[in-house]
Amino acid sequence: MTSLIPLDAFTVDRDSVLPIYRQLYDLIQQGIITGKFSAESKLPSSRILSKELCISRSTVTTAYDQLIAEGYLVSRPGSGTTVADALLSSCPKVNKETKADIELLSEMLSPLARSYLGKSRKYVSYKQPTLAVSLPSRTGFPHALWGKLLAKHAKKGLDIDAGYDHPSGIEPLKTAIADYLGLARAVVASAKNVLILNSTQAAVDLLCRVLLSPGDRTWVEDPGYNGIRIAMRNYAASIAGVNVDSEGLCISSNEYPPKIIYTTPSHQYPTGVTMSYSRRMALLDYADKNNCWVLEDDYDSEFRYSGKPLPSLQGLDEQQQVIYLGTFSKSFSPSLRVAYIVAPDNLTPLLETLLADTGQGVNLSVQHALAEFIQAGHYSQHIRKTRKEYSHKQQLLIEAVKKHLSNEVTVSSSQAGLQTLIYFNHEIDDVVVEELAN
Amino acid sequence: MTSLIPLDAFTVDRDSVLPIYRQLYDLIQQGIITGKFSAESKLPSSRILSKELCISRSTVTTAYDQLIAEGYLVSRPGSGTTVADALLSSCPKVNKETKADIELLSEMLSPLARSYLGKSRKYVSYKQPTLAVSLPSRTGFPHALWGKLLAKHAKKGLDIDAGYDHPSGIEPLKTAIADYLGLARAVVASAKNVLILNSTQAAVDLLCRVLLSPGDRTWVEDPGYNGIRIAMRNYAASIAGVNVDSEGLCISSNEYPPKIIYTTPSHQYPTGVTMSYSRRMALLDYADKNNCWVLEDDYDSEFRYSGKPLPSLQGLDEQQQVIYLGTFSKSFSPSLRVAYIVAPDNLTPLLETLLADTGQGVNLSVQHALAEFIQAGHYSQHIRKTRKEYSHKQQLLIEAVKKHLSNEVTVSSSQAGLQTLIYFNHEIDDVVVEELAN
Repeated sequence: MTSLIPLDAFTVDRDSVLPIYRQLYDLIQQGIITGKFSAESKLPSSRILSKELCISRSTVTTAYDQLIAEGYLVSRPGSGTTVADALLSSCPKVNKETKADIELLSEMLSPLARSYLGKSRKYVSYKQPTLAVSLPSRTGFPHALWGKLLAKHAKKGLDIDAGYDHPSGIEPLKTAIADYLGLARAVVASAKNVLILNSTQAAVDLLCRVLLSPGDRTWVEDPGYNGIRIAMRNYAASIAGVNVDSEGLCISSNEYPPKIIYTTPSHQYPTGVTMSYSRRMALLDYADKNNCWVLEDDYDSEFRYSGKPLPSLQGLDEQQQVIYLGTFSKSFSPSLRVAYIVAPDNLTPLLETLLADTGQGVNLSVQHALAEFIQAGHYSQHIRKTRKEYSHKQQLLIEAVKKHLSNEVTVSSSQAGLQTLIYFNHEIDDVVVEELAN
Repeated sequence: MTSLIPLDAFTVDRDSVLPIYRQLYDLIQQGIITGKFSAESKLPSSRILSKELCISRSTVTTAYDQLIAEGYLVSRPGSGTTVADALLSSCPKVNKETKADIELLSEMLSPLARSYLGKSRKYVSYKQPTLAVSLPSRTGFPHALWGKLLAKHAKKGLDIDAGYDHPSGIEPLKTAIADYLGLARAVVASAKNVLILNSTQAAVDLLCRVLLSPGDRTWVEDPGYNGIRIAMRNYAASIAGVNVDSEGLCISSNEYPPKIIYTTPSHQYPTGVTMSYSRRMALLDYADKNNCWVLEDDYDSEFRYSGKPLPSLQGLDEQQQVIYLGTFSKSFSPSLRVAYIVAPDNLTPLLETLLADTGQGVNLSVQHALAEFIQAGHYSQHIRKTRKEYSHKQQLLIEAVKKHLSNEVTVSSSQAGLQTLIYFNHEIDDVVVEELAN
């Protein structure tokens, strides 16, 4: 007879840096491995478990689906989700004669890697869904021009350089980025302040390495981008989630001041709030008085559809305490794998040294092609074009939602970026909504 | 009157992980900043100082040249090298009102970054010298074909993906590398064991992060590649240099066993020694008995000009204890910025998770173009072609050296790779030799 796993076997910790679905995944996997959840016992339906834990149904199905894919759970129409009956055959073989012996492996790892043992994330090759958050347009991309530039520099660049270049990137690209940011974002910097990396995540990882001691306190926006929490956790930071109101990140002067304040002032992720001018000045003042570094992540500032853009925090800062982060993942394509840091003068040499030590770098043809793409004006043109496209799409979406769903949802007032936050007025099953929308 | 800085003001520490030139640079810079070396005082000539310290003259001139470039020292024909007289004007301005205040900055850094404060390395854009070590041929590169492939995938890839792909690289490239290594190097691996990164340095940094706890003992070859020492130092390893004899890295069973053994068995850098079969088996046996990870860096194994290549350590290992590192920097071009790790099954998920956290990645068009380049056979063809070119060049060099310099030098017997070690029979000024050779 099939036993039902009781609801009180499931708990989640909202203060954990681990996402809820991950906690659920770990809990069920451990339950199965330790035998607490016996073979063929039945799990609560995602609908019931999501209500019980006050989490979204998609969080539950994400955890269930992963465990089904890995053979821990089985889903059969009509009989719901159950623990697999022949678990051992679908699990990786543990060979006692090799280093696969988990206990021995554990001893042979760093403390950080050990903390991920049995919890390492599963990655799949990416397929763009119909409803995608914060991904650039497929149709807007200048394929022919970009391919031509890349081929041109592949032919030229490899011939001339045939070697290593500066670890923080080539001069022409740094100059192009500094020039562009000066005009578009009032960022005060020259080429020597710019470091080229693979992604904002890479930038944050490097900055944690250069700035954080274990136990250092950090502030991140809550809700906010999860990647920054992961990076800070890996450097053993003590992470505090800070509220976001209609003016942006809330400064709490009662708390012990942090070493790093991470913020997305142009277009807070995910709420879409733009930090007000007075909040910007208050944040810079707080950081100055308390010796904090401010990490300004300007990930999609290019896409502002109304109103006058506020200058970047970096441009307002007179204390060399703001470190500016930008990326081409939203404005151009994530497949480029190019992002950048704009750092204060005194920090740049240290960042370059430790960046070189990490061995990261961007293909030289890509760097040269991108430098030409920006300097020749193609990048500004591309942004103007896609800004219109995104603004138009956002308007259509908002109009349609307001027309057909005005009783059901409230659209946030943000008019920028590649995502729009919509609040449901009543309790609703998000999985059903997502399925219907796709 | 100009005072001469006495010779006993200079010392070097041969056991330090810092290169000698760097130690000299630091010593002089600190002497100047602290006022110990007064303005306009004269430094010993590079010839005298190199004799005094028993180091090569080029080591001294490298340190002097960098300090001259930074304005700490001045070199005038006839009067030698002196401490600059107007140091302050050429140093970066220290503004007490900004975070540039060094003491405050120091408090705001991680312990690792603090250890580099005032010692950060200077990088310049790379220009290939006439006599280059371990750099691939400029003339042998298939520019037209590579540019065409890159453009093709730039046009196609960005259209299809327009997104993020798997953090450890695209499936077709992993498959191409696993297939190639199976044939060429007897490496036993499938695509799921392969991780794509930017460089061998990046691979080593990731492996240190995943494997090392502070204070863990590591073995590196002495003499050997300095980048590995830097990476291990950054993770607070206790690094021991291990001798290399005619059979390769020497195993010392009297010492406390290390967590990691780093070795270049195909073609030891820089001696060129190939590790013997019996030493390979002894190393694997030692690693198994003592629970060590073996990092096999096969950086230029493609270029073997005589004799039968020995299988990789990875292929001989039955304990999943060898982690294989390879790069396209020597066999193709460093400007590509593509290298890879082949990891044991049980380590791959952890490496992927922590690689994703570091935000590293290779441009998708570059990955797709490279996958096609390998799978279509162009890569093997390129290696066959350049192998002939390098073998011929090496032969010419060795013949010329033997013919004209047989009394002066002894050529090492190694017949592989992109470097050849030549020993001087008598004491000689290496700077003069380098200048004359160029």
